[in-house]
Amino acid sequence: MANGRKRQGKPDERAKICPKFHAAVELVGRRWTGAIIRILLDGPARFGELKDSIPELSDRLLSERLKELEDSDLVEREVTDSRPPLVSYSLTPRGRALEPALEELGRWAARWITV
Amino acid sequence: MANGRKRQGKPDERAKICPKFHAAVELVGRRWTGAIIRILLDGPARFGELKDSIPELSDRLLSERLKELEDSDLVEREVTDSRPPLVSYSLTPRGRALEPALEELGRWAARWITV
Repeated sequence: MANGRKRQGKPDERAKICPKFHAAVELVGRRWTGAIIRILLDGPARFGELKDSIPELSDRLLSERLKELEDSDLVEREVTDSRPPLVSYSLTPRGRALEPALEELGRWAARWITV
Repeated sequence: MANGRKRQGKPDERAKICPKFHAAVELVGRRWTGAIIRILLDGPARFGELKDSIPELSDRLLSERLKELEDSDLVEREVTDSRPPLVSYSLTPRGRALEPALEELGRWAARWITV
């Protein structure tokens, strides 16, 4: 968010963009990242289930994105000690906290995007 | 938004990602696009004012992004018939409608991003 709703200080001085806001857009806006988080809001998923939900996404790119999401502490990978071991992905509290923002974006999309 | 909150249909069938939601994330998530929209939510701005608010952004990239935002009907460019002519950028109704989503993302950023 900008540091204020309106111009502040000298007449022609506008608020600088907030670096936290910018970092958040860049994080969530990376190609396919928003889609992966959106799917995981419905519950933990295995790699293959994520693939099924986003068929356009290649295995390589999905792995890459999941790794980035783990590194950003938005997603965690859990391995169940079974035979064969089951790997599943779920949102961390930080990732789950994105729900209101993604819900609002979904509402916007339903209203304004025509595909 | 996925087409349902939980698994639906056959036990292992998850909702496919909604193409409208995906299109919205890709649109807003493009590098610097969210930042430009955020700034314009505070009111119309001239090119130089946008530059001042986002100093890291080059002239070339800002022009490119503004052109894309115009093409997507999120931003409109207005030329005032004066000497010299003044060019300013503002949000269309479609762009302004992104405010709730960006506000929520701002709240998330304030809570979860450390920079």
